[in-house]
Amino acid sequence: MDRTAIKDLLDAVAAGETAPEDALDSLAALPFVDQGYARVDTHRSLRLGLPEVIFGQGKTDEQVAGIAATLAGKNQRVLVTRTTESAHRATAEVLPSAQWHPKARCITYEPAGASELPEVGKVLVVTAGTSDIPVAEEARFCAERFGNNVEALYDVGVAGIHRVTSERERLMSARVIIVVAGMEGALASVVSGLVPRPVIAVPTSVGYGASFGGLAALLAMMNSCAAGASVVNIDNGFGAAYAATLINRIGDF
Amino acid sequence: MDRTAIKDLLDAVAAGETAPEDALDSLAALPFVDQGYARVDTHRSLRLGLPEVIFGQGKTDEQVAGIAATLAGKNQRVLVTRTTESAHRATAEVLPSAQWHPKARCITYEPAGASELPEVGKVLVVTAGTSDIPVAEEARFCAERFGNNVEALYDVGVAGIHRVTSERERLMSARVIIVVAGMEGALASVVSGLVPRPVIAVPTSVGYGASFGGLAALLAMMNSCAAGASVVNIDNGFGAAYAATLINRIGDF
Amino acid sequence: MDRTAIKDLLDAVAAGETAPEDALDSLAALPFVDQGYARVDTHRSLRLGLPEVIFGQGKTDEQVAGIAATLAGKNQRVLVTRTTESAHRATAEVLPSAQWHPKARCITYEPAGASELPEVGKVLVVTAGTSDIPVAEEARFCAERFGNNVEALYDVGVAGIHRVTSERERLMSARVIIVVAGMEGALASVVSGLVPRPVIAVPTSVGYGASFGGLAALLAMMNSCAAGASVVNIDNGFGAAYAATLINRIGDF
Amino acid sequence: MDRTAIKDLLDAVAAGETAPEDALDSLAALPFVDQGYARVDTHRSLRLGLPEVIFGQGKTDEQVAGIAATLAGKNQRVLVTRTTESAHRATAEVLPSAQWHPKARCITYEPAGASELPEVGKVLVVTAGTSDIPVAEEARFCAERFGNNVEALYDVGVAGIHRVTSERERLMSARVIIVVAGMEGALASVVSGLVPRPVIAVPTSVGYGASFGGLAALLAMMNSCAAGASVVNIDNGFGAAYAATLINRIGDF
Amino acid sequence: MDRTAIKDLLDAVAAGETAPEDALDSLAALPFVDQGYARVDTHRSLRLGLPEVIFGQGKTDEQVAGIAATLAGKNQRVLVTRTTESAHRATAEVLPSAQWHPKARCITYEPAGASELPEVGKVLVVTAGTSDIPVAEEARFCAERFGNNVEALYDVGVAGIHRVTSERERLMSARVIIVVAGMEGALASVVSGLVPRPVIAVPTSVGYGASFGGLAALLAMMNSCAAGASVVNIDNGFGAAYAATLINRIGDF
Amino acid sequence: MDRTAIKDLLDAVAAGETAPEDALDSLAALPFVDQGYARVDTHRSLRLGLPEVIFGQGKTDEQVAGIAATLAGKNQRVLVTRTTESAHRATAEVLPSAQWHPKARCITYEPAGASELPEVGKVLVVTAGTSDIPVAEEARFCAERFGNNVEALYDVGVAGIHRVTSERERLMSARVIIVVAGMEGALASVVSGLVPRPVIAVPTSVGYGASFGGLAALLAMMNSCAAGASVVNIDNGFGAAYAATLINRIGDF
Amino acid sequence: MDRTAIKDLLDAVAAGETAPEDALDSLAALPFVDQGYARVDTHRSLRLGLPEVIFGQGKTDEQVAGIAATLAGKNQRVLVTRTTESAHRATAEVLPSAQWHPKARCITYEPAGASELPEVGKVLVVTAGTSDIPVAEEARFCAERFGNNVEALYDVGVAGIHRVTSERERLMSARVIIVVAGMEGALASVVSGLVPRPVIAVPTSVGYGASFGGLAALLAMMNSCAAGASVVNIDNGFGAAYAATLINRIGDF
Amino acid sequence: MDRTAIKDLLDAVAAGETAPEDALDSLAALPFVDQGYARVDTHRSLRLGLPEVIFGQGKTDEQVAGIAATLAGKNQRVLVTRTTESAHRATAEVLPSAQWHPKARCITYEPAGASELPEVGKVLVVTAGTSDIPVAEEARFCAERFGNNVEALYDVGVAGIHRVTSERERLMSARVIIVVAGMEGALASVVSGLVPRPVIAVPTSVGYGASFGGLAALLAMMNSCAAGASVVNIDNGFGAAYAATLINRIGDF
Repeated sequence: MDRTAIKDLLDAVAAGETAPEDALDSLAALPFVDQGYARVDTHRSLRLGLPEVIFGQGKTDEQVAGIAATLAGKNQRVLVTRTTESAHRATAEVLPSAQWHPKARCITYEPAGASELPEVGKVLVVTAGTSDIPVAEEARFCAERFGNNVEALYDVGVAGIHRVTSERERLMSARVIIVVAGMEGALASVVSGLVPRPVIAVPTSVGYGASFGGLAALLAMMNSCAAGASVVNIDNGFGAAYAATLINRIGDF
Repeated sequence: MDRTAIKDLLDAVAAGETAPEDALDSLAALPFVDQGYARVDTHRSLRLGLPEVIFGQGKTDEQVAGIAATLAGKNQRVLVTRTTESAHRATAEVLPSAQWHPKARCITYEPAGASELPEVGKVLVVTAGTSDIPVAEEARFCAERFGNNVEALYDVGVAGIHRVTSERERLMSARVIIVVAGMEGALASVVSGLVPRPVIAVPTSVGYGASFGGLAALLAMMNSCAAGASVVNIDNGFGAAYAATLINRIGDF
Repeated sequence: MDRTAIKDLLDAVAAGETAPEDALDSLAALPFVDQGYARVDTHRSLRLGLPEVIFGQGKTDEQVAGIAATLAGKNQRVLVTRTTESAHRATAEVLPSAQWHPKARCITYEPAGASELPEVGKVLVVTAGTSDIPVAEEARFCAERFGNNVEALYDVGVAGIHRVTSERERLMSARVIIVVAGMEGALASVVSGLVPRPVIAVPTSVGYGASFGGLAALLAMMNSCAAGASVVNIDNGFGAAYAATLINRIGDF
Repeated sequence: MDRTAIKDLLDAVAAGETAPEDALDSLAALPFVDQGYARVDTHRSLRLGLPEVIFGQGKTDEQVAGIAATLAGKNQRVLVTRTTESAHRATAEVLPSAQWHPKARCITYEPAGASELPEVGKVLVVTAGTSDIPVAEEARFCAERFGNNVEALYDVGVAGIHRVTSERERLMSARVIIVVAGMEGALASVVSGLVPRPVIAVPTSVGYGASFGGLAALLAMMNSCAAGASVVNIDNGFGAAYAATLINRIGDF
Repeated sequence: MDRTAIKDLLDAVAAGETAPEDALDSLAALPFVDQGYARVDTHRSLRLGLPEVIFGQGKTDEQVAGIAATLAGKNQRVLVTRTTESAHRATAEVLPSAQWHPKARCITYEPAGASELPEVGKVLVVTAGTSDIPVAEEARFCAERFGNNVEALYDVGVAGIHRVTSERERLMSARVIIVVAGMEGALASVVSGLVPRPVIAVPTSVGYGASFGGLAALLAMMNSCAAGASVVNIDNGFGAAYAATLINRIGDF
Repeated sequence: MDRTAIKDLLDAVAAGETAPEDALDSLAALPFVDQGYARVDTHRSLRLGLPEVIFGQGKTDEQVAGIAATLAGKNQRVLVTRTTESAHRATAEVLPSAQWHPKARCITYEPAGASELPEVGKVLVVTAGTSDIPVAEEARFCAERFGNNVEALYDVGVAGIHRVTSERERLMSARVIIVVAGMEGALASVVSGLVPRPVIAVPTSVGYGASFGGLAALLAMMNSCAAGASVVNIDNGFGAAYAATLINRIGDF
Repeated sequence: MDRTAIKDLLDAVAAGETAPEDALDSLAALPFVDQGYARVDTHRSLRLGLPEVIFGQGKTDEQVAGIAATLAGKNQRVLVTRTTESAHRATAEVLPSAQWHPKARCITYEPAGASELPEVGKVLVVTAGTSDIPVAEEARFCAERFGNNVEALYDVGVAGIHRVTSERERLMSARVIIVVAGMEGALASVVSGLVPRPVIAVPTSVGYGASFGGLAALLAMMNSCAAGASVVNIDNGFGAAYAATLINRIGDF
Repeated sequence: MDRTAIKDLLDAVAAGETAPEDALDSLAALPFVDQGYARVDTHRSLRLGLPEVIFGQGKTDEQVAGIAATLAGKNQRVLVTRTTESAHRATAEVLPSAQWHPKARCITYEPAGASELPEVGKVLVVTAGTSDIPVAEEARFCAERFGNNVEALYDVGVAGIHRVTSERERLMSARVIIVVAGMEGALASVVSGLVPRPVIAVPTSVGYGASFGGLAALLAMMNSCAAGASVVNIDNGFGAAYAATLINRIGDF
């Protein structure tokens, strides 16, 4: 509730149009539904302008289904990430139209009559290797659900540097670039140096022993000698998609 | 050199307008000046659309001055970061109009007749505490030099959460937000959760022993439960400014 | 044995009421039962004022059952944490009334005629997310067994900061607050800043790659910018409950 | 502002006793003073029931003096930790009665006519070695300023275990115990096992190479086999004092 | 395409022998085949002088088979490392003559009529213990495929130092030595001190708890007091073979 | 071969009693048998005065059996540690009298007519908790095989400090003490402080999250405030037994 | 006080020879002197059979002098390690005969009429390099003060393995060997493999960047493939000397 | 001494040409001079074919001068690395012709009449940035002293990828390439991918906070997606030069 809305409410109280008790309820109304195990934020979609996302990892199937049903009951789009087919089955029992997307390990639900999200400026998802594709697919899928125009450019790592330098025009055509890379994560630096575009770097846990589960790539990306890149968590395709979406929308303010 | 330019050049060769030798030179021309200790990239400013930046740390005063002079000789804007007053003195001997900015520890040089950079959409620099201000000032100064409209909101850390929640409108008014925080770095998560804006998180090395030189804040920011934030290196105010600039410009494509 | 008791004993020896041999036995009596694989501390419950706790992890089913039987033989309450249904079956063979609590992964045993522990001042268990609930349930269950009045407030993480700021009164109503959070662990700082209550922070191993099994949350909580919180081990719900109990009892000295 | 206060305000608006504009101001009033480099929280002392604390490290002398003066202007007690004699000189120029406490590296200021804080239940500060005393002194000094009855028991580390086991009665006499230890930090476990009292463990950076600046003690304390202890940051005497104060006050609710 | 080739092409354009469009295609021709999930580098074998290698880990069976088939279609030798029998079955469906090498966990394919690689100067693969052999076998197999004359000397770790010192002549007979060692990795230092030969050190993940998955050996090898050794990733037998091959070929320039 | 033996050999050559060729063979004779995958050190038992030990982890069943058979063929005692029942079956096929010891996860083989090892001065194996027993059993079993008089004292951790302080006499009765402890590993410090005996500290991987697989205990033991302890690898019961044996034998020089 | 002494005391009480009050005092007598900042353990020398040692690091000059004077007042030998010339000056003011040993950075004090410690079996201090000598000198000096017969063998690291293998006889002549090594710390493994003697390994902080202050050597020594070595803290020469002394004395029980 | 030499010696003994005592001396002769603080290896230069190198760091000026004088006395070339001007002054007192090389921080000494080392195949030293030059200069200087033909190519980091891709021919012209890079260390991967040459990668400690003293670059280089590179210690220019020399000489076997 912002300052203007509060002022209007107070004017209504002063004018006797609204009882103090009702005003109190409005001021105190909680923009979430308490389900005991979750406080479902039913306003976030409006507040942030994006579908509501449930992080599936660590939640029971029942919790996923319950939270999804609450959001659906508020007529909202739902996206569950890092989830399982089993959680989808539980969700489909209460929301039969919920869909399962195996490559991205996501569940989605669209309320009846939901308008299409307009596709806006291009987000390009780039990977260093073929082994980085599962994380990239999570990013691609989520970014598409958030209404971005998404393209993919896979396996252009620095071991064969011409694979990426030959794609300069395509890199330039994007508003935001998501670079997904494991091992030494050098692709983020190279892309940042090639084109003046915001780069969201996603380290992956791909690699031999001393990659230490993605730590090597994470540190390398943090230390990029080419400014312009910022980094999200290891294997966090969703987070990269979300950040890219917020950036991409600036072009349509 | 892009495909169209190469095509034009080849047409000129075919038409006998350009000698093969000259075409070869054009194709092979190096867009940098080799100074032995540095390959100064004199085209980057055009390629990336931003003034040329010299990372001062680890360079001798003579190297800083030499690189700056080379760029100035190409009529370019220069910005030296992480540098010292002593490096400024060396630079001022060859470029008398070079300026020293002590708070940001930067040197700048403007070529005669350089046009003003237009100020574009707002970048907001936020700090958790007063001790994070030096890093924030580096970010603020650099972002201003890159032509952004910059504002600052300092000391709004989560120990007194109302200090930041009361500023929701101001946060919303920015296109990009730079959050600078040491200790547990929680402010990045809170800001990301409050407003649908891209957040560049800068961990600082401020804190007691177990902050391990900023590692605690870095990891916390990487693990933000609120999507939308991405992270740059510890104390890297310049890097945050650079990333924010690339993002901000999307609004003016 | 404290100074007064020793003095009484010595007086009895001097008075010839107690033989030196018996006094020696009393002075040397070991307040534990040696079972070879365990030295069961049968006085701790008196010494510390709490039921005896067996840390189940790493013990064989037979060891759990054996230690529990020893304690039960001394007419003591028993609580086994981090244990399994299989260990419960082994225990139930020797102590048929032993109970299994699957959510908290605990076994309990109450000696016949055990008086109820009085419920004292409120302990509030708070989680950042739904995925943190298993650890929180261990804390809740243990705290209840230790005679605290326990309430839960789940899924109020900082991604939607109003979920916790709207609960200030409830936070104030507690004597001690246990904050359970993974990812960036920021909730501990926010709660500590909101209310002047002791906060026991429990980092959890919930999160993407760079949470490094809870290390990110642990470091963040250690570095909280808001004083008042102290931290226990990753996923250690029991330890938090124990510390909270000792604190809570101060109110009833 | 809690629910009751808002209700009263709304009733006053409905009754025409308060103009909507004034009510708006009250609802929006910021409980802090913005000094540009700091948002001084002038209500925290009331909110948390403790003097206002300024963390001196990383702040310029001018910033320390400025924040102290703002708080003094609101008639509040001031405590600056981790500060320097030079910062005291700057503060004393604007607040001549500000005092410098070299052992604890703190500045204090008492407003004229400030009532004495009542001394409440005992906090015992224990160190493993003589080298841990500087951190312990910070804890002791701060705890005294927060109105606790504080005692010290120094150099009772586990290398000579009788030094601490012989002090069981004294440990029992405290409501809260702060254990300050470097090296292997074992004293926290031993004290927690000896007495049923809340233990705040403070790892220190004292030790040979593989203490890694206090990390060894921190991890050891986190992993204490004796429940009841919780841990604050390395060398953070102030944080321990603050947590101990909140705990101690439970006895006087 | 190097300078000379470009010059020839330009001369042909000037002479009207080559149309500008065709020249453009030549200049822009991509030396890889885009398969969506992989950009197969069909020139690398020529460019680097070695068979094409596919890193199998993290790729689906279909991806391995697809990339292998593309390379085979260009008449190239194929080597897949870190792969599985299941991936071999998928590959054999499209390339029936592809072979499975279980000890080295590799798939190979030889195009019809491929000439034998000449065997060049000796590479010696040495292990500290028997448990290091699987990694050594990967190195041995790959080095043989790359045309080296390879010998093995296993289980000569420093616990029985005469096992390696008695082999000085054999060590001298090699052009390059690959030392594979887990635990404390000391063998690399000893071998480097014994003979003036380039040593490629491969840390393995063999060892008790504090080997931390090979980190102990990696750090030890990095810190070798005997110069001459350089280190590849933990358990990376292939990488060592590749580096040794490049070194070995210098002798046949 | 020591200086005296070489002198004798040379004298024999000078005297014509030994042919130069034979002397050469003697000087060059390798004190091990090369099995390709292992260089079995058949003299170590004499050189070090202890049975030959095979570290089973990472070796195939066939390798274990092969090395054991080689040693048995030289009439030596064999001890295989960190091994499996399956490796025992393979070994028993070639050495039917080989025995399997499940608690210690060891295989042993005694050559026919092997004399008993004399039992020498006491080694005491102490554990902090019941969960540390498996590692302690490895130490106990190995120490017994090496001819020590071994006793055990389990579950005397510092959470109940009287359990260990009451055993001072028993600790004094040992020549060497092996302290096995996980979690915070404090027992090593306490024992070292109590008695002037060499302590071999074995950190175990027992504990909650922030024990980081035994790292917390390892660092704590390294940083012991009580001198006299030295540390072996995490969970390395065998290594502790071996070191204790060498120490114990000093008493029988 | 052991069981026999207590029995004697109780008999005396029963016989009326000792008053209960006096017996109480005896039982409760604290074997240390409380100086506020230190609890000086005046019985340890008897209890452990060694001179009293003060760890100087982190103590003020006054504290060092005060503790030394207390011990001297009890007629005890004093050894201060890790101390400074300035602390010696402070000590010499109260104990004029206290001596300063610059190479070992130690202060010593001998009470008048102190009998010579008998020299017992040999301790050999070995270093890998010349840069490890300062730590070795601390070990050598302390071991001599503790009554050992000490020899040194410096700069025999594994880069020239014959330097140590040629010294097998000398290594065999020692009862205990202290191996001091930085960088990769391999010497500890080699020595343990060469001779059946207890090895105390001391990692040093000598080395290039990735030695991480001695961590590389520490981990390597922990992971020694040759059993028999145990490890003390980085640069902890004193600790190695102390452990070696306890071991050496076993030979003279 | 190899097998043939021993055989010759034995034949001489058998023939009565050599006395057994003299043969013994020959067999036992130590190829080093014992200076107490150093065992100077006077044969290594012959054994390894390179000048003798003294690692200056951690040695006193007197030790450096003493070791240098010993080597000079054996008519050997001397190279002291990581040393200081003060150590040079001490050395020049005993070896007046010793030279000081400030950029490489090295001392050299050439015996009278030393023949020139022949210059062999090219070693190319490449840096990512200007700040990496000091480490590169150590590598360049040492490699030149070891008789390599050395060239430098500085400041060609991946932020401007054309700076290195345009130098493919020059990279190809080298037999071995030393890549010196801090920050994210990506240049090693790019160079390895561009040319089939052995790459020695040297991570440097250049960078912002999360480079953790070169750890980020070290891990990145270890994890290079392009095979062919192996890694030496952080900032270890000398080590890279040494390894490159051994490799380079293969071309001249």
